[in-house]
Amino acid sequence: MRVAVVGGAGYIGGELLRLLLCHPDVELVQATSDRQRGQPLHAVHPNLRHLTSLKFTAHDELGEADAVFLALPHGTAMHRIDELALRDWRIVDLSADFRLRDPKAFARHHGVEHRRPDLVERFVPGLPELGRERLRGARWISVPGCQATAAILALRPLAAAGLVAGDVLIDARTGSSGSGSSPAPAAHHAERSGVMRVYQPTGHRHEAEVAQACGVSTRMTVTAVEAVRGVQVVLHLRPARPLRQTDLWEVYRAAYADEPFVRLVSQRSGLYRHPEPKVLSGTNLCDVGFAVDDDGCRVVLIGALDNLGKGGAGNAVQCLNVAAGLDERAGLGFPGLHPI
Amino acid sequence: MRVAVVGGAGYIGGELLRLLLCHPDVELVQATSDRQRGQPLHAVHPNLRHLTSLKFTAHDELGEADAVFLALPHGTAMHRIDELALRDWRIVDLSADFRLRDPKAFARHHGVEHRRPDLVERFVPGLPELGRERLRGARWISVPGCQATAAILALRPLAAAGLVAGDVLIDARTGSSGSGSSPAPAAHHAERSGVMRVYQPTGHRHEAEVAQACGVSTRMTVTAVEAVRGVQVVLHLRPARPLRQTDLWEVYRAAYADEPFVRLVSQRSGLYRHPEPKVLSGTNLCDVGFAVDDDGCRVVLIGALDNLGKGGAGNAVQCLNVAAGLDERAGLGFPGLHPI
Amino acid sequence: MRVAVVGGAGYIGGELLRLLLCHPDVELVQATSDRQRGQPLHAVHPNLRHLTSLKFTAHDELGEADAVFLALPHGTAMHRIDELALRDWRIVDLSADFRLRDPKAFARHHGVEHRRPDLVERFVPGLPELGRERLRGARWISVPGCQATAAILALRPLAAAGLVAGDVLIDARTGSSGSGSSPAPAAHHAERSGVMRVYQPTGHRHEAEVAQACGVSTRMTVTAVEAVRGVQVVLHLRPARPLRQTDLWEVYRAAYADEPFVRLVSQRSGLYRHPEPKVLSGTNLCDVGFAVDDDGCRVVLIGALDNLGKGGAGNAVQCLNVAAGLDERAGLGFPGLHPI
Amino acid sequence: MRVAVVGGAGYIGGELLRLLLCHPDVELVQATSDRQRGQPLHAVHPNLRHLTSLKFTAHDELGEADAVFLALPHGTAMHRIDELALRDWRIVDLSADFRLRDPKAFARHHGVEHRRPDLVERFVPGLPELGRERLRGARWISVPGCQATAAILALRPLAAAGLVAGDVLIDARTGSSGSGSSPAPAAHHAERSGVMRVYQPTGHRHEAEVAQACGVSTRMTVTAVEAVRGVQVVLHLRPARPLRQTDLWEVYRAAYADEPFVRLVSQRSGLYRHPEPKVLSGTNLCDVGFAVDDDGCRVVLIGALDNLGKGGAGNAVQCLNVAAGLDERAGLGFPGLHPI
Repeated sequence: MRVAVVGGAGYIGGELLRLLLCHPDVELVQATSDRQRGQPLHAVHPNLRHLTSLKFTAHDELGEADAVFLALPHGTAMHRIDELALRDWRIVDLSADFRLRDPKAFARHHGVEHRRPDLVERFVPGLPELGRERLRGARWISVPGCQATAAILALRPLAAAGLVAGDVLIDARTGSSGSGSSPAPAAHHAERSGVMRVYQPTGHRHEAEVAQACGVSTRMTVTAVEAVRGVQVVLHLRPARPLRQTDLWEVYRAAYADEPFVRLVSQRSGLYRHPEPKVLSGTNLCDVGFAVDDDGCRVVLIGALDNLGKGGAGNAVQCLNVAAGLDERAGLGFPGLHPI
Repeated sequence: MRVAVVGGAGYIGGELLRLLLCHPDVELVQATSDRQRGQPLHAVHPNLRHLTSLKFTAHDELGEADAVFLALPHGTAMHRIDELALRDWRIVDLSADFRLRDPKAFARHHGVEHRRPDLVERFVPGLPELGRERLRGARWISVPGCQATAAILALRPLAAAGLVAGDVLIDARTGSSGSGSSPAPAAHHAERSGVMRVYQPTGHRHEAEVAQACGVSTRMTVTAVEAVRGVQVVLHLRPARPLRQTDLWEVYRAAYADEPFVRLVSQRSGLYRHPEPKVLSGTNLCDVGFAVDDDGCRVVLIGALDNLGKGGAGNAVQCLNVAAGLDERAGLGFPGLHPI
Repeated sequence: MRVAVVGGAGYIGGELLRLLLCHPDVELVQATSDRQRGQPLHAVHPNLRHLTSLKFTAHDELGEADAVFLALPHGTAMHRIDELALRDWRIVDLSADFRLRDPKAFARHHGVEHRRPDLVERFVPGLPELGRERLRGARWISVPGCQATAAILALRPLAAAGLVAGDVLIDARTGSSGSGSSPAPAAHHAERSGVMRVYQPTGHRHEAEVAQACGVSTRMTVTAVEAVRGVQVVLHLRPARPLRQTDLWEVYRAAYADEPFVRLVSQRSGLYRHPEPKVLSGTNLCDVGFAVDDDGCRVVLIGALDNLGKGGAGNAVQCLNVAAGLDERAGLGFPGLHPI
Repeated sequence: MRVAVVGGAGYIGGELLRLLLCHPDVELVQATSDRQRGQPLHAVHPNLRHLTSLKFTAHDELGEADAVFLALPHGTAMHRIDELALRDWRIVDLSADFRLRDPKAFARHHGVEHRRPDLVERFVPGLPELGRERLRGARWISVPGCQATAAILALRPLAAAGLVAGDVLIDARTGSSGSGSSPAPAAHHAERSGVMRVYQPTGHRHEAEVAQACGVSTRMTVTAVEAVRGVQVVLHLRPARPLRQTDLWEVYRAAYADEPFVRLVSQRSGLYRHPEPKVLSGTNLCDVGFAVDDDGCRVVLIGALDNLGKGGAGNAVQCLNVAAGLDERAGLGFPGLHPI
């Protein structure tokens, strides 16, 4: 399968390139970047040195492919979709443009009207754990945001079982790569290093994605902490009835027994007894854990992933694998490092 | 005033030594450590080089002083208190031993019975912002834990105004110095570096301290993140009535207008628009901020401090200043660094 | 091929386990650790969760295997070698015990007499780039230290060409995993974080390894910096005759044209124009670069690697691949991450 | 004394503001920044909150003062000097413009001709340890670069004693604040985090400063490592005759016995036995250490400082103290933090 990456010079784009270059069933045929046009891929992504002799081309020079990944800034894909729709290829969009089915929610969270709300329904949600069947053979796919992915995978089994009462509070912590590869004051090393920056105490746009997928209302606070790739979400909720730890194991084991990329992590001891994103760097894994208060009336859920892996490029490749009928795990076997 | 530090080789002890050596109205006369006995202070704390020629003595060699700080592991002070009580000096205890007035709460959170519950009432709570009058002239003082201090300072004005409805969720994030100076797997660099470790999802012992000081029920989750000294707490609560941002400013300005070490930080823009602990390293400041959801029905409070500063040694020195009738700010003027 | 790891609970051991569990031609049959006996491998190495159901056994319970890796503390292997020699398996030793052919150099650098100097010659040096032929079919292999590996790969082509005059100064910088997984003051997070610690200004033991491999005298200074896995060496030397950058390219291209795991990195621009270890985390790569002063009379060589990868476990697996006649690259294809 | 800071929004400027606001004998009257004009100082430097109500003014609005610090980008001061020279105030320039007495060296290292080479001689070198007498009463002062300061303080006693033979190799390691506060790819957090980036293997401009001050030829390699404020230099040299550790102590004790801001650090044991910049953050200290090889024929010198402290703003304030006849230590008493 010949695959192209549009927007290959960013961090999500670079991770796509790495995964696709090592994918046994895929041939990377093109990577575009207006900014880096003419540069070899490894001039931007040093880990690709010796893996390929491809150079970035301009977006306008996009050629033939069986599938194309869109790793463009939010708000860009909806402007290019008409042109991209002219060709018969699979499209996997990694931006926020086609995630929210409600155009009002899109306008509220993104501050602009959606240009093609009519097309949103044509995009299949790109999270295999949410429904693998719709993804098989899908032509257009929209993958969720990194924090939303972690929160959905942590929350959905409990929500689907009708065990969530009231609002869910989500404390999300994020590494620096989530804000992209362009220099900016918020990502300047001397400011970002060692930070605990609550940059959005209320009203984060990923709330709507979680609500859409899980059917419960959420409140999300996002804090930037010292990490590059990791994302962690801690969800606080009251259960519909008192729950014990064994109840939670039952719910989550049933939900994820056959999932290749979700691991349940909730041990009594050990440094890594709860989900910890640092050991997930480079993987397509999402670790999910849970704890209950002594009285069973307060549940804490924890999700962790690599925001460029299962929170972005890895998940997008998994979706393509499912859509194209490949082995779902193909190209995604890296288990992560310890220590790191 | 002649002052001694019992347990001067740990991190809290070292911070006390630094503050006391630079304090205009204090003479540091002794620092004890059984482990480092005979070593110059700067052999353990390199920042004290050239500041003093004192050497650590054994605990048993503790001599005369007007005031003594106890920077001992939790559970130790209650075993030494009888002996220490024989002399007529001020005692400032930085351990958890005499913080909780309810001996059952102590036993539940610390796993052992209190040895001298009868003495707890003789310790004045060491947080000037909670009541400066009781501290004036106080002989025995017990300062709160670092996360509790941040949470109390963030929550108390709203709680005292009767504006908190229901439980308060506290997401606490902590740097590595909070777990002390003794090598341990959890603090081994390769494991601790870049971590987001939810090490206590439910039932943290600081909950009881916050509840005692604020009169509201709390649930605390603690996560270790990559930092050395910083502590940040994010509190989520429903207000008793819808609140606007201006209401919060009013409550907090009234509470903290005259406080020398609490700053209100809640701006619309800027990298440091919410409380951020990294710029508080070395200071005795606690920054407090707040935000409300659009509908005013969800409040987020944020507190930040240096766990060895206002969360420990700095606050203890402030308490001594108040108790001994010194200038409350004496020795605590360092404003922190930017960048850091 | 059935393979066992002796000393699997440390960091080098864990990296061996990860590589061997993902190796296409190898079956991991056992991992020993007296300390972690009975624990599942993933209780210590969280990245191995779901990869294996093996548990650690005691060292004494070591069973059958075709090859055994020794990842034991320095000074241990020479005490176990008699017992290990009783069986007919390949041995790959990752400790320092059998690296130095001169027993006096061993005693000088390690402070103890070697127990079995007569066996040193039976160990083939475990660096394929130094001589692949001797490794083919080798039964006993001793791999070099991480800093030595980086320095040898950077220096040897120039030294072998007779182009090095006088001593070589080596400035080595190292991450924290190099000092092992046991908690210790030097690796305590609050002390180790953000450090630039010159912990051995003169006389490092890796000097002798470099001298043995390259035939030139070296002086090495080692500094611990904030990193977990990375090692970087910067070598300063005077060339035997003035050299231009193109001369260096010629020498190094000739030496490494066919090497699968050495990359030459010496560009005019770009953030990663010189070897940088952080993008090598998890890989078996060693990046080598070079620069000359304007007058060609001073050469700077740079080597970078992951101390657990090409500086340890990765290189050991590569040696086994060569010795056992497998594809030399098998199991070592991970290209590293960007960003990280 | 009324003091103004020109270029107060950068990192050096911010450190000057902090030091001057806490200085007992100085009144900060103005801070300029075209970029931040109209903003309160604490909007840029959060540590200045509550310390001042000053706002940044444009450079053109610079008013009266007794002394003015120039914290402008390199190459700017020489363009403004004619205008600044019209007023009768002390000038302390922190840029590179007036450091090198040889205009050819300036042109070679900075790539442009100097605009006012005739004025260079009017600037007194701003390093009190190099000659305090010339600084007393000085009107124009030019302080050295951060790496040069560390290297000069480490090297000069030995060089002045005629004990240095041949070239000196300098391995400099630097934190991120040294490259300023403007976002740029090299300082983007995801790229800069955890890096060991040899960004200038040969020919660094600080070589000329060290040579000018010490009278010996140097070769400097600069590596960016994970730190914000720290700078460390490791110098390698051959002594003119074999030296023992006690010889070095003698030379350095004689040189620095009365220096308030240079500490000799060369212990046999302890984590901080050699100069380590992290414990110097926020201080005006330069720690200097040394070691010799067993045969006394190779000397390693180590210098460490905070690049914004003794490597910049702190040193500039010390120079002003000397020039204006104030207590040389005034405003510079912060001893640094441990841990940090």
